[in-house]
Amino acid sequence: MTERIEDAIKRYGSRIDDLLREVIPPGQSDCLSEPIWHHLSTGGKRIRPALCLITCEALGGNPEHALPFAVAVEILHNMFLLHDDIEDGDTMRRDQPTVWVKFGLANGINAGDYLLARAYSCVLKCPVSAEKQLKLLDVFTSTCEKTIQGQALDINARGRENFTTDDYMRLVELKTGGYLAFGMVGGAVVAGAAEGVIEKLWSFGKTMGPAFQIRDDMIDLTAGKGRGGAIGSDIKEGKPSFLYAHTCRVATEAQRQRLRRIMLKPREKTTDADVRWVLKLYEKHGALAAAQARADSLVAQAFKTIDELPLQDAGPSRPAKQVFRDIATFMARRTT
Amino acid sequence: MTERIEDAIKRYGSRIDDLLREVIPPGQSDCLSEPIWHHLSTGGKRIRPALCLITCEALGGNPEHALPFAVAVEILHNMFLLHDDIEDGDTMRRDQPTVWVKFGLANGINAGDYLLARAYSCVLKCPVSAEKQLKLLDVFTSTCEKTIQGQALDINARGRENFTTDDYMRLVELKTGGYLAFGMVGGAVVAGAAEGVIEKLWSFGKTMGPAFQIRDDMIDLTAGKGRGGAIGSDIKEGKPSFLYAHTCRVATEAQRQRLRRIMLKPREKTTDADVRWVLKLYEKHGALAAAQARADSLVAQAFKTIDELPLQDAGPSRPAKQVFRDIATFMARRTT
Repeated sequence: MTERIEDAIKRYGSRIDDLLREVIPPGQSDCLSEPIWHHLSTGGKRIRPALCLITCEALGGNPEHALPFAVAVEILHNMFLLHDDIEDGDTMRRDQPTVWVKFGLANGINAGDYLLARAYSCVLKCPVSAEKQLKLLDVFTSTCEKTIQGQALDINARGRENFTTDDYMRLVELKTGGYLAFGMVGGAVVAGAAEGVIEKLWSFGKTMGPAFQIRDDMIDLTAGKGRGGAIGSDIKEGKPSFLYAHTCRVATEAQRQRLRRIMLKPREKTTDADVRWVLKLYEKHGALAAAQARADSLVAQAFKTIDELPLQDAGPSRPAKQVFRDIATFMARRTT
Repeated sequence: MTERIEDAIKRYGSRIDDLLREVIPPGQSDCLSEPIWHHLSTGGKRIRPALCLITCEALGGNPEHALPFAVAVEILHNMFLLHDDIEDGDTMRRDQPTVWVKFGLANGINAGDYLLARAYSCVLKCPVSAEKQLKLLDVFTSTCEKTIQGQALDINARGRENFTTDDYMRLVELKTGGYLAFGMVGGAVVAGAAEGVIEKLWSFGKTMGPAFQIRDDMIDLTAGKGRGGAIGSDIKEGKPSFLYAHTCRVATEAQRQRLRRIMLKPREKTTDADVRWVLKLYEKHGALAAAQARADSLVAQAFKTIDELPLQDAGPSRPAKQVFRDIATFMARRTT
């Protein structure tokens, strides 16, 4: 009897929600609970924290001991969303006004800062040895740093000249690579996994994270990103996508300059005709196909990394490696 | 031969600066180093981190072992300044444009986030036992949380009706109480100080921090806050000061309403006549004298706490308690 990953995520998700409500009680009059729960109530699938617990269990650890770390993972995720919404000037998220729009810029920034401190508080509550706690704190902190370094490159790459696919890969590896894996790594630390296992989990993130991001870039050109189904919002925001990086390299000088001018326009000044022109340029230069090929190759690498996991069967209910294959399949499907 | 506190601060200050440059190397092209060093280069006296090292030494510890924590204290301080400047809409700091003005809002927020992660990285580098490291992380995290909770109250108290001096005290105790003491507490943890000593250091902060803040409120009405010597910038910002809280309680209903209207005006719409009217109202109701009395009483409590420190003479060069009396005297003088 093996449980589907989707079911395990759902099962663990409600445990995470319970602890989340303990760590940041809703309905407090502290000017933090309200903006934070306005954001948390808009949803979220708790995938990253659930993968932390699933990993811990698969490696023979007690997922209860990893639970505070899993909640820290979820809190950090939401902290980044809060601050990113401000940095990107996004006014809506999941059909609700974003926190800074509803509660003001100052409360938006401050609520994000509070989430980060609360996340550390959670990590410090893991009932594991001092050595494991310090390892968890190290995993958490280095991931924070890398993600923020990636965000710094992202912010400043908007409409950048000579933005190459190498630049793009460096950016997304920093911004998404650690971030995708660190919940799983935390679960592995709690389970007392060997260094070799932990290294492979990091490698998994370094390929699957960017694959995820590239496919996210592609979705923007096909189905839109769920903000009312509009296509091309990355173009309006001037976001340095894989498609932009690819096209920068192969376009003519005149095309590149016009592309760049459009990317640099403030969102509200970018016309639908601008977006259509960019989409056509991307198409002409095979940007979507190139993106697809790169994402496929990264996913293949991610699966190879899973195959290389130096694992004995440690899981209580089924072979550990199969769990990780299932996770990889689940993540790969999500990014399609 | 006893060293003056001012000299010890200067001596330790340069050690802190050295490590700061290691932790966040200047001149990197990572879109973080530049905005951060734009801010760090505007100065700062490194008082909080120096007090961490002085405390560690006075309690018989090795200040070298506390150095990474001291740097974390300094980094956190600057992280708060970066984000506060955005939250308050301050465009200038020490005669330089603030980071968000020079590098944009997104870079300002992100650079602050990075500083917080780097600060944790520093704490994790303290060469002390795992137990002490976890204690340091706990001290650091709980201080972060309290300071941000205080900031949340501060942001939302602007122009609030029925803002009492009790509300004010709760706000500044959260915002400044832990923050003033946590460097010293960290130094004490590294030195292996007894729980009783650590408790008294926290108590010291809880009285000296608010005293400092009240006097900061008073300075705004007399000498100005160094932003070109302008008086009354707290009034223009609508900042919930002790003077505002005191006057709210004793003013007539009509005065209170006019006062509140002025506090709620956007900064650029507050006229000089508005500021003069508020100053006169504060004077009429003895706000400055009340503030002075409260600050004096808090400072007296802080000195009493120092006297109660359960200390043997542990310092290598002079009686430890005298060091803390000197620190208290130094802090009290700074706040005058």
